[in-house]
Amino acid sequence: MTDDAPPRRVAVALFEGFTVLDVYGPVQAFASARTARPDGTWHRLFEIVTLAEKAGPIKSGEGPTTHADHAFADAPGYDILLVPGGFGTRRAVNNAPLLLALTAASRRASVTTTVCTGSALLARTGIMDGRPATSNKVAWDWVVQQGPRVRWQRKARWVDDGDLITSSGVSAGIDMALSLVARWHGVDMARQAARFMEYVWHEDAADDPFA
Amino acid sequence: MTDDAPPRRVAVALFEGFTVLDVYGPVQAFASARTARPDGTWHRLFEIVTLAEKAGPIKSGEGPTTHADHAFADAPGYDILLVPGGFGTRRAVNNAPLLLALTAASRRASVTTTVCTGSALLARTGIMDGRPATSNKVAWDWVVQQGPRVRWQRKARWVDDGDLITSSGVSAGIDMALSLVARWHGVDMARQAARFMEYVWHEDAADDPFA
Repeated sequence: MTDDAPPRRVAVALFEGFTVLDVYGPVQAFASARTARPDGTWHRLFEIVTLAEKAGPIKSGEGPTTHADHAFADAPGYDILLVPGGFGTRRAVNNAPLLLALTAASRRASVTTTVCTGSALLARTGIMDGRPATSNKVAWDWVVQQGPRVRWQRKARWVDDGDLITSSGVSAGIDMALSLVARWHGVDMARQAARFMEYVWHEDAADDPFA
Repeated sequence: MTDDAPPRRVAVALFEGFTVLDVYGPVQAFASARTARPDGTWHRLFEIVTLAEKAGPIKSGEGPTTHADHAFADAPGYDILLVPGGFGTRRAVNNAPLLLALTAASRRASVTTTVCTGSALLARTGIMDGRPATSNKVAWDWVVQQGPRVRWQRKARWVDDGDLITSSGVSAGIDMALSLVARWHGVDMARQAARFMEYVWHEDAADDPFA
């Protein structure tokens, strides 16, 4: 990839009560992958947009409010869909229009990713049926009930099934996002992004200290 | 502290181009500190508000927009001030009204905290003069120029100087925030919050793998 290649676009699906670090950990990881241009400026390898049922303010589970850039229906093209978790998933799994929007949003992406109980939310759409996946450990029993035909794997920092990547609790989303940086731009770029974040990357998807 | 005690309030100072993980890492850490009530609901030990020069949308350096709850002048009372860093600090250090607002905001807090190049921004107010502090390593040379009378410590995950706590780059803010959870609620509560985030907490402020 040359410096001039367009960045891959990451679309983050927001809903009331999402968990902030599920979103902003991966966002930081993707945004920290960049190359220096000859003139000293940076070329980012990913760019981020935020989606929700309606554009505008969406309150997180932790209090702060993120302003969604676009409604799902009006989103520009993107490569990666990120579905976060949060206390809000308890209500979101019963929100049929949101589940339909997520199904359509996933079809538009070449890779769909989840963090934490975002796996439960995506599982409710049915598109994870028959596929290996993980989620966080704190809410495990509830999560697996949301997708009885998913091949749940409890012990995993993240599970990479090609065009579907699911991660464990909260911080695990950072490790998963760095693995996608490595997939497309090499492990050295992912390590450079981690160093920029002063984050100790857990490079091994199978190494799950919380299972 | 009993379950009924009011939560401590954390006020996050936002400005155009702040780094998302500098904000949302600590926010997640504070919000993850909680006790179970007898009825099964959670009592949070901290609550979060966001401040900026004006209430409303503030674009981060990584793209997504956070909606600031209050203008600095209209903020409710709070205990902890959090000053994040980001590419936006390069401009913010020359924004005199913002520096005045941060000085006043710090006086209202019992503890002022910084993450990453947020240390440079706060240093420009003069209130860190003569005090030990750290910041991130990627922008170190620029940071120390912003506060020539600060006693900068390069090798530190965070520096705890009582009512002033400064942290190293990006992810280090999470470790620093957990240390404040431990200060007030004990190390077991901080470890519980880290486990909820599935985050491997670096408990030792002196252990800096990035210096």
